[in-house]
Amino acid sequence: MSEYWSKLVHDLDPYVPGEQPQDQQYIKLNTNENPYPPAPGVARCLAAFDTSDLRRYPDPQSAELVEALADYHQVAAEQVFVGNGSDEVLAHAFQALLKHDRPLLFADITYSFYPVYCALYAIDYRQVPLDDELRIDLDGYRSENGGIVIANPNAPSGIALGLAAIRELLADNPESPVIVDEAYVDFGAETALPLIAEFDNLLVVRSFSKSRSLAGLRLGYALGRPGLIEALQRVKNSFNSYPIDRLACRLGVASLADDDYFRDTVAHVIATRERLGEALQALGFRVCPSSANFLFARPPDGDAGRLYRELRSAGILVRYFDKPRIDDCLRISIGSDDECDALLAALKKILG
Amino acid sequence: MSEYWSKLVHDLDPYVPGEQPQDQQYIKLNTNENPYPPAPGVARCLAAFDTSDLRRYPDPQSAELVEALADYHQVAAEQVFVGNGSDEVLAHAFQALLKHDRPLLFADITYSFYPVYCALYAIDYRQVPLDDELRIDLDGYRSENGGIVIANPNAPSGIALGLAAIRELLADNPESPVIVDEAYVDFGAETALPLIAEFDNLLVVRSFSKSRSLAGLRLGYALGRPGLIEALQRVKNSFNSYPIDRLACRLGVASLADDDYFRDTVAHVIATRERLGEALQALGFRVCPSSANFLFARPPDGDAGRLYRELRSAGILVRYFDKPRIDDCLRISIGSDDECDALLAALKKILG
Repeated sequence: MSEYWSKLVHDLDPYVPGEQPQDQQYIKLNTNENPYPPAPGVARCLAAFDTSDLRRYPDPQSAELVEALADYHQVAAEQVFVGNGSDEVLAHAFQALLKHDRPLLFADITYSFYPVYCALYAIDYRQVPLDDELRIDLDGYRSENGGIVIANPNAPSGIALGLAAIRELLADNPESPVIVDEAYVDFGAETALPLIAEFDNLLVVRSFSKSRSLAGLRLGYALGRPGLIEALQRVKNSFNSYPIDRLACRLGVASLADDDYFRDTVAHVIATRERLGEALQALGFRVCPSSANFLFARPPDGDAGRLYRELRSAGILVRYFDKPRIDDCLRISIGSDDECDALLAALKKILG
Repeated sequence: MSEYWSKLVHDLDPYVPGEQPQDQQYIKLNTNENPYPPAPGVARCLAAFDTSDLRRYPDPQSAELVEALADYHQVAAEQVFVGNGSDEVLAHAFQALLKHDRPLLFADITYSFYPVYCALYAIDYRQVPLDDELRIDLDGYRSENGGIVIANPNAPSGIALGLAAIRELLADNPESPVIVDEAYVDFGAETALPLIAEFDNLLVVRSFSKSRSLAGLRLGYALGRPGLIEALQRVKNSFNSYPIDRLACRLGVASLADDDYFRDTVAHVIATRERLGEALQALGFRVCPSSANFLFARPPDGDAGRLYRELRSAGILVRYFDKPRIDDCLRISIGSDDECDALLAALKKILG
């Protein structure tokens, strides 16, 4: 049947997300979801929604959401692009900004969707090794390139790069678009947003999935100079005029309106992360310093695959990457305090 | 700023959807929306939705919706692909199935997104002229090609191709993937779905936007042999793991569950279309025979651009395409009976 496939389809090696068992019987610490519900205003907004509005197309520009984001981040509406999850925003950004004659650069260990996008759009890329502590090494980004993408904090390490280092990266590469993927930034890293005023090659990508507890709604966005945003708009308008449905647009605005709730839940996740990190270290784990809503940790014997399976048998899902350099570690999403206590109890039992 | 754009971005000429004024002060007969609300079960489903579920990612396979569609159409789940609106489904289909060395064929007058997708994915294409009555001419599809896409019923004419003709098209082109875009099929055309059992090169694309009154929710799907569906899955999973949000998945299932409501509203739209068509002819319009939820009609003097503007001034939006061969016609979506009466009253006034 594959005689009908376009050539590129044969070579695709699609991204595999963490398991999403639909029976919900696991303690799910494997896909970096937030343990707390979305802001109460989101539920109120949903309750007030008139279903008959769904018969109409949404605003193709999602102006209501774009303006709410512009207000929130104190930028102009022309500096905001919204999409159906930050994965879609990244996909458009790869196609619109990162396909050049010179190779795209990103870390060898980072969000594993990046090489998948490159295959989808036939983008030449080169992976720059993280150092032995899984930190980004700026020296590797000084070679000739057609673009750079970094996740900050990085995944799955959770390690953040400081603002001074990002400024240096931008200054070193004035001819390259630089994408900073800030999916996890709210959990303690410094955002690169202030640098948008300074650098016209910077695109910052954000998500409502983690810090706003809206992974199930699919909302992401990008912020940058209007010229970069225009490239994304051109691709989006050549792909799908209306990526954001009416409910997502409305509920996204409601989420942005409640900043106290946002700060409280983020602070709670951070506090739980610090407590869990210390407890894991007490159990002999080596834990990367995390600025995200997950911890990347090496069990005492380094047999992360076995531990992943034993935790799964005990009803706890974490993420294990069977890949060079990181197959001795587990990525553990920060759940509620009770969920993290259950994890620690299970680990104590398994590790003896 | 465009120094940062990927090369292809410069050449994109994005699709321009019909106006979506957000103030809702117009009688909106320009984007083929359904005048009736979604099935009552959709509102009940929304009211019962627990917002806290949104903190979790959706099922990346949207299995609940896929299975409901498989049941509804009496096919296997492996024959169903779902996407964020049929525009997204078409985009993936163009990239996954229609990029070959030989040119893609489609009508010169059809859904104007098709050439836009071709630009986005650098697909070589050739447009096959409709005949003088704006009907598809099968002879034009017998030349060498790498794929075929037809809209059935076609847009903006509303004219349908019969099942025998589609079978002929498929039989004539066994080496080419053939996409039949059935966004409007429920309003009176014959579906090509029965031919899926017969032809492994057929992909049928459908939408929840029109006949199910869910344009604002963004749901579309494709049906075909598992090998074709696999190509779409590979591209989708290299683009966005979770295109369908939790609300859309749930509400789509609720819509499919109420077949009586679906049939009633579709029948009502068809009855209004027939009445409006006769009234337009009585006013001297030449009206294409429509199997869709719109009419394509030439005003008595052929000055469709002027009439579009005068209707707009009178608070009524219709669609005018300023393009060769069709710039003497208006596309008029079928509204409620009251909306169509208001249109007729305005036309009588304008035309004297």
